[in-house]
Amino acid sequence: MKKDIDIALEAEMKPIKEIAASLNLSEEDWEPYGHYKAKLSEKLGEKLEARPDGKIILTTSINPTPAGEGKSTVTVGLGQALNKLNKKAVIALREPSLGPTMGLKGGAAGGGYSQVVPMEEINLHFTGDIHAITSANNALSAFIDNHIHHGNELNIDPRRISWKRVVDLNDRALREVVVGLGGPVKGVPREDGFMISVASEIMAVLCLASDLNDLKERLARIVIGYTYDRKPVTVKELGYEGALTLLLKDAAKPNLVQTLENTPAIIHGGPFANIAHGCNSVIATKTAAKLGDYVVTEAGFGADLGAEKFLDIKTRAGGFEPDAVVIVATIRALKMHGGVDKKELDKENLNALQAGTANLKKHMETIEQFRVPYVIAINEFPTDTEEEIHALTSWCEQEGAPVSLVQVHEKGGSGGVDLAEKVMAAADQKHQPLSYTYDLEDSIEQKINKIARTIYGASGVEFSAKAEKQIRQMNKFGYHHLPVCMAKTQYSLSDDPAKLGRPDHFKITVRDLYPSIGAGFLVALTGDVMTMPGLPKQPAALRMDVDTSGVVKGLF
Amino acid sequence: MKKDIDIALEAEMKPIKEIAASLNLSEEDWEPYGHYKAKLSEKLGEKLEARPDGKIILTTSINPTPAGEGKSTVTVGLGQALNKLNKKAVIALREPSLGPTMGLKGGAAGGGYSQVVPMEEINLHFTGDIHAITSANNALSAFIDNHIHHGNELNIDPRRISWKRVVDLNDRALREVVVGLGGPVKGVPREDGFMISVASEIMAVLCLASDLNDLKERLARIVIGYTYDRKPVTVKELGYEGALTLLLKDAAKPNLVQTLENTPAIIHGGPFANIAHGCNSVIATKTAAKLGDYVVTEAGFGADLGAEKFLDIKTRAGGFEPDAVVIVATIRALKMHGGVDKKELDKENLNALQAGTANLKKHMETIEQFRVPYVIAINEFPTDTEEEIHALTSWCEQEGAPVSLVQVHEKGGSGGVDLAEKVMAAADQKHQPLSYTYDLEDSIEQKINKIARTIYGASGVEFSAKAEKQIRQMNKFGYHHLPVCMAKTQYSLSDDPAKLGRPDHFKITVRDLYPSIGAGFLVALTGDVMTMPGLPKQPAALRMDVDTSGVVKGLF
Repeated sequence: MKKDIDIALEAEMKPIKEIAASLNLSEEDWEPYGHYKAKLSEKLGEKLEARPDGKIILTTSINPTPAGEGKSTVTVGLGQALNKLNKKAVIALREPSLGPTMGLKGGAAGGGYSQVVPMEEINLHFTGDIHAITSANNALSAFIDNHIHHGNELNIDPRRISWKRVVDLNDRALREVVVGLGGPVKGVPREDGFMISVASEIMAVLCLASDLNDLKERLARIVIGYTYDRKPVTVKELGYEGALTLLLKDAAKPNLVQTLENTPAIIHGGPFANIAHGCNSVIATKTAAKLGDYVVTEAGFGADLGAEKFLDIKTRAGGFEPDAVVIVATIRALKMHGGVDKKELDKENLNALQAGTANLKKHMETIEQFRVPYVIAINEFPTDTEEEIHALTSWCEQEGAPVSLVQVHEKGGSGGVDLAEKVMAAADQKHQPLSYTYDLEDSIEQKINKIARTIYGASGVEFSAKAEKQIRQMNKFGYHHLPVCMAKTQYSLSDDPAKLGRPDHFKITVRDLYPSIGAGFLVALTGDVMTMPGLPKQPAALRMDVDTSGVVKGLF
Repeated sequence: MKKDIDIALEAEMKPIKEIAASLNLSEEDWEPYGHYKAKLSEKLGEKLEARPDGKIILTTSINPTPAGEGKSTVTVGLGQALNKLNKKAVIALREPSLGPTMGLKGGAAGGGYSQVVPMEEINLHFTGDIHAITSANNALSAFIDNHIHHGNELNIDPRRISWKRVVDLNDRALREVVVGLGGPVKGVPREDGFMISVASEIMAVLCLASDLNDLKERLARIVIGYTYDRKPVTVKELGYEGALTLLLKDAAKPNLVQTLENTPAIIHGGPFANIAHGCNSVIATKTAAKLGDYVVTEAGFGADLGAEKFLDIKTRAGGFEPDAVVIVATIRALKMHGGVDKKELDKENLNALQAGTANLKKHMETIEQFRVPYVIAINEFPTDTEEEIHALTSWCEQEGAPVSLVQVHEKGGSGGVDLAEKVMAAADQKHQPLSYTYDLEDSIEQKINKIARTIYGASGVEFSAKAEKQIRQMNKFGYHHLPVCMAKTQYSLSDDPAKLGRPDHFKITVRDLYPSIGAGFLVALTGDVMTMPGLPKQPAALRMDVDTSGVVKGLF
């Protein structure tokens, strides 16, 4: 099969004005960024207020292999399939970060014949949203160090600044740095570190804000560190919420592009799915729901991370509920959960597949607990055997779960028509209101316990002495009413990436907690969480090039 | 008078497609970025090849006050005035950096009724060029540290890496940092520092490249540091010139906007005028010359820095010559050069003004040495008295120099019609070919001596022991044939900012030299040169805001 980039470059894209027109948008509702990208106006939300909402479909997955389960590909394929059935579908995805593109992934915007395009633009600077976030984040860092340099009126303790600088790159050498060296004219020396831009709290803030005003209020609430007498210091006290909002005013507008089959796609925001909530923006999802009969969106990693946060955090911030969930599984990953070594996944193994369904089963239970109807999508791979496919579909049917074999990578929308029909049926079911995992009034310990027990299947939670102290502090500062955003490995239901399948009799250890007050959640860290990836020995960038007429080479 | 931002927000802009049409550009020649900005196609250069070139007018100035002499304002005003005379004029300016905007300046794109618009867009993220440069610069840093981390095949000495990281902000705490701390998984510890993005060699490279291919070749030649046995290490040896060109492919396209009077303006590239050459891009200037009867462009700081580099470096890289120069002077600055304290500049002082003309006289001689016709533009200020204006114009006339009083700040193009007529007359003069300050075959010492003696009026040059050693190294590496880019204070003809007027009997001290091989020049540092500005105690950002409908506040 052709490479993704070659399929993408051969795409017959429609001018973005035609895509906008297909959504009944008028000229003042959007601005062009080139001929195939647009930004939607900040005034559009208000204008669409009266329109009815389309159905919201969330795509999630089992615990993935390092290569991923193809959630974005299924999301795009499902949107295309709905369009084939003459439904007005809009896709809502996250923006890719430049770091992984230049590092390992070489580009990501779906795959095969289920991609969003222009793929090479989306994977490079796109419309500049992440650069604006990087600028705002680092401007705040400069303002903090400048405040301390010019007399430190707010009494900020340089040893307790939690706000870090960012770059949208994989750059391990920036994980731990010392800044302010070189004497009095070069600031106050202190320890600092850089995260990848998509791990910035500003990214989470942008993705949870409902409009420019809410964005500014959230930015104002950000806690950047603590004073010498341990009081939190906010952006509002520094006085920069206006400037930061100004830097983000265009980044706050959702971006409109299209799929290979000209289905409209809104790509906006891309927060990490570990220390943040891993979903595209609330503004994008709500706008897409106003523009389409169906919006198909996704959340990062497996259902234990992305879907839980989508359902417990994003829906609360956005005031909406999904109508159906798609759980993506691959036979390869299920075999891995059933004990097969990564190198042996190409071989048929019905026993391992059977054992691996335990992982899928847990995620089905999770979605049932939230009381949202779901469909299982088996994302077919060339190495899957007929016997394996039969075994998995039979198992799903025995479980009473609707299941569909999807071939959207190879066939585009036509490979997802059966899934689309089952998803529409699920979304049409009358279902009870969304049942959250925890109440906001629960204590911090209760919230974490409920997530660990009901979502991960843990037998309990252990808090480090540090975490216990931090919880006492957060209670003191009045942060206990916020939802909790769990940072955990995506590879296992537990906090140990080696425990595949459906582990039991395990406890979750919370090592560390910190407040993301602008985003509006508390982050609980379990295990080692990476906020700045490193580059491999041979980065994807080594293969990248552009010829004299501007044609891109070496993106996947 | 109204504030710049208020004038800019009230502007009656034409849709950018009308501006493009006025230049006889067809739809495939440009891409929209919103309704009032466009990027010109990379294929446009080739297409315009056969068109005749318009006349190139360079705006420069005397040694400025810290507030500047209003070069951009006069450049914009002159372009507008030419249009009033029914000449097709195109303005070519530099892109402003976000750092000074958020720091001291609060925005810069001309002033009063001679501004380029949309001012707030141009001053914030514009079309993302500087963000792309930041990304490419820092990607290269990450690739270097990654190379060392993964075995250091090229034998790079981490103590001799000259490539620095950048942010497009004023951030003194990043001037000197240590990266790679935290143990083996966090890279190799080493000293590093951040410059402001516009000081990056990549900015200079982008501005001197003639097309994408030349861009890639220049990027490949960049020297990032030295091996343990003191051999230069290039980007080509690391293998990333393709990826860096890919990251810059859109940034390499010139941006089209307009002035308050709808004169087309190409704003592209903005290298520092001290460690780099301080001019907008070669591609932009050449494109503007193909599109207009007149292109009005500017070079940073006074004629001793910007114009010298425009004439000795940029014209060589671009293969063109200017037809006339405008030397901007203000009565305030001349009084300062005549010995008046900054706080007393509002008061009439004819003696000081007379004494201050010595500074202007030197810059007139400089332009005469290059053999380019010139006109003096007196940029009028409300505090100038009639007697002062009369004294200065009389002095110019006695010197035999064409002079014009311009009121473009207050009146727009109509305040520059007299200047436009005199500039057209100057540009129509038959003049001898451009006479460079030095030959490329001169030794490095000779080049620096010629610049110091003929441009600055110095009696000679002293080289530090370090600089002498560096010159020997550069000769060894074969870099001696490159032009020299002088980094010197803009406030004085000498290397001492306190020596105003026309100092004599002074020597220039070259402390340090380094190669900018991608840009294609050697940088000679005199005095302290700032590559990362700091923020004042009350940064301009404190006043900035945006209201709920997206309207910008607090830019000047």
